Parts: sequence; structure tokens; C-alpha cells
Amino acid sequence: MTTVTVEVVKSLLSANDAVALRNRARLDQAGLLGVNLMSAPGSGKTTLLARTMNSLGAAAPCGVLVGDLQTSRDAERLADHAAVVHQINTGKGCHLTATQVENALGQIAIQGLAFLFIENVGNMVCPATYALGERRRVALLSVTEGDDKVLKYPTLFQAVDAVLLTKIDLLQVLDFDVQRVEDDLRQLNAHVPLLQLSTRSGEGFARWLTWLHDMRAEIQFS
Amino acid sequence: MTTVTVEVVKSLLSANDAVALRNRARLDQAGLLGVNLMSAPGSGKTTLLARTMNSLGAAAPCGVLVGDLQTSRDAERLADHAAVVHQINTGKGCHLTATQVENALGQIAIQGLAFLFIENVGNMVCPATYALGERRRVALLSVTEGDDKVLKYPTLFQAVDAVLLTKIDLLQVLDFDVQRVEDDLRQLNAHVPLLQLSTRSGEGFARWLTWLHDMRAEIQFS
Repeated sequence: MTTVTVEVVKSLLSANDAVALRNRARLDQAGLLGVNLMSAPGSGKTTLLARTMNSLGAAAPCGVLVGDLQTSRDAERLADHAAVVHQINTGKGCHLTATQVENALGQIAIQGLAFLFIENVGNMVCPATYALGERRRVALLSVTEGDDKVLKYPTLFQAVDAVLLTKIDLLQVLDFDVQRVEDDLRQLNAHVPLLQLSTRSGEGFARWLTWLHDMRAEIQFS
Repeated sequence: MTTVTVEVVKSLLSANDAVALRNRARLDQAGLLGVNLMSAPGSGKTTLLARTMNSLGAAAPCGVLVGDLQTSRDAERLADHAAVVHQINTGKGCHLTATQVENALGQIAIQGLAFLFIENVGNMVCPATYALGERRRVALLSVTEGDDKVLKYPTLFQAVDAVLLTKIDLLQVLDFDVQRVEDDLRQLNAHVPLLQLSTRSGEGFARWLTWLHDMRAEIQFS
């Protein structure tokens, strides 16, 4: 009997991933770090970005792509803080796609920017499985959402480079076990940093800014 | 010239909707009201259900189907409060489907129950477009999520029979404009009741219980 070896050639990249790689190359070439921010609605992405860009200041100009089903409220809120803001309305779409980001990049000037923040649609599930072209992925979890969320939404928390525990100024009026979040996170993503902060009080903010600068320094731009 | 009339027969029901109708008929026949609860993660669905079932008491026994990507934490939390609890793990699925509910109904005893609460996956986008067999749909919005969410997630808020504004005991420590939520809601869903409540303090809870009893009375069971 003759053994027949069959080689199955399978595309390893989905259509979305192929576009995401193009976006990443474009950002690399322009010398800026793409950061994809993902979380449930209302965990504080927009407020975080406004304060972050104020703190980074003129030395590190930022662009922002904002994803929402409807309205341009978030883009309007960020207009005074960013060098460039572009709102993407997804209609009924529950996450941003690499193609939406590619189209946005065709409409804004990114040369000279230090960071491109991509504020995804508020959703802890779907955005986690769509690469957009970012070099770093960040999940936000606000303490008002409850301390049980990490293991309930593992696809998000295992796929990110940093977790921000937000709104910690409210810890005093809530029953929230930070250690439980830390323990759950270690099961999914052993070394991911968990940065506790409050955009309102500014507590923990310096560490987040340091993390951003460190990540930018890590990337070798062409 | 002869005019030829072509009749296009199109199935008006998606596969999911067909299963949802079967589920609804099954619940009607068993004499219980199905309520589909939808919201962002952490808006308080599970805590609300625990207190709701305690308040309804033995006169109105309840079943609960709980949807989560992973873990059976919510089902465990509800086990002492419900007559029947069944956890559905969706894996990477971002919403419950009518078929998942149908399978669950095949595994639990619903005869003699007054209500079947279906706690959907925490997600403000995808669950809104999948009927499960419920007679009433409820959206939760917690005041910690921000007062800008209604117009940002219109598919959810225009599709529900009641909106619960939860965690109102925290209003005093937040910047949240209840009137803005009310105004935005009126643009999408003119007559939907907006029930403000706190599961922790109990404020507004009586009105929610009255709404549930009224809804059950409205339904004509076969």
C-alpha cells in the first residue's frame, strides 16, 4: 500500500486580519502607536482619553478614532483634547472592523502623531476577536461593574496587554473586591499589568501614562 | 403586451424567530410570563433578580435562565432565590439564541411557575435583535454607566417594554442627568416606562414589582 500525503494549504489570515496588518504597517510607517481600547459601555473610555491626551500634552499629539452605533457625542467630547478625532458610526455593528479603521485612516492626517487611540464600541464580547491594526490592546473594567467580570468575559481579558481598573474613587461606596479581580486575571493572562486609576481624582494616572510611553518606546518604527 | 404579475413569497421569519415563537407558545401554555433582561455587563441584572424573586415570594414562583460566556456564578447567586435556575454558557457567543432557550426549556420544569426571567449576556448591542420567546423585554441602565447611553445604543432602547434605571442610590456621588436619559428615551420609544430604582436601598422597587404583576395580568394565557 502506498502512503499518500495530502498537504492542506489553509489561509491563516482572515480577511479582517489582512486589513489589520495593512493598518498596522501604515501606523508603524507614520511612527505612531495604535492602542485599541475595549470595555463595556460606560466604563469610562472617553473620559479617560480626554484626560490622557491633556496629560500627554503637545509633546505627544494624539489621534482618536471613536466607534459607536449612533451619535457623534464622544467625538465632540474629545474634539478639544485631540489633534485629530474621527467618529465611526457602526449602525447595528457591535464592534469596529479593520476596514472601518482603514477607511478612517484614509480621511485623517496621522503624520506627526505619537499615538492613535481607537475607542471601540462599548461591548465586552465582540471587539475582542477583531484586530484593527493596533500594536497594543487595553481593556477597561470600572469598579461599578462588579468584581466578577473577568472570568465571565475571558475572551476580552486574555487578549489584552493591559487592564485598567477605572473609577476607583468609588471603591469606598461599593462592595468590590480588587483582589478577586487580580486573582481571576492571573488565571487568564499571567503577566498582564492591572492598573488601578481614577480619571476623576487622578489617582494612578501617572502609572498609566508611563505605561503608554513605555509601550511606544518598545515599538521599533521603520 | 400582457402584464405578468410575479408573486414573491418570502419567509417573514428568520430561523431564530421561528424557534422564539415556539418557545413563546410553550410558556403561554404553561401559564408563565417570559421576561428578557438586557443590559451592559455590571448594570445589576443578577442582583435585581435575586431581590425581585425574594419580593415576589412563594405566591409567584420563578424560573431563571442565565446567559454568560463562561462561569456559572450568576446561577449560583440565584440558586437560593428561584424555584428553578439554569445556566447557559455561550462560549464566545455575544447573545442568547432562541434555540439555546428551547434546549434549556427541555431541561427544566416550568409548570406552576409565574415568571420565567431570561438574563441575557451582558451586552447592549447584539441581544436586542434576537427574540427568545419572551412576552416582555426589559433594558437596564445603571447610573454609573453615564447619562449618554440611550442614543448611543438605540437598537436596545427602542425595542423594549420597560427601562430600569438602576443603582440610583449612587446618584449623589455621580454626575448623572436623569432628565437627559428621559428626553433621549422619548425620541426612541415614546411611551416606554422609565423605572428608577435601587436594588440596594429598595427605593423604587415596589413600582417594578407592580409593573411585573401588571404585565402578567395583561397576558391572556391559553
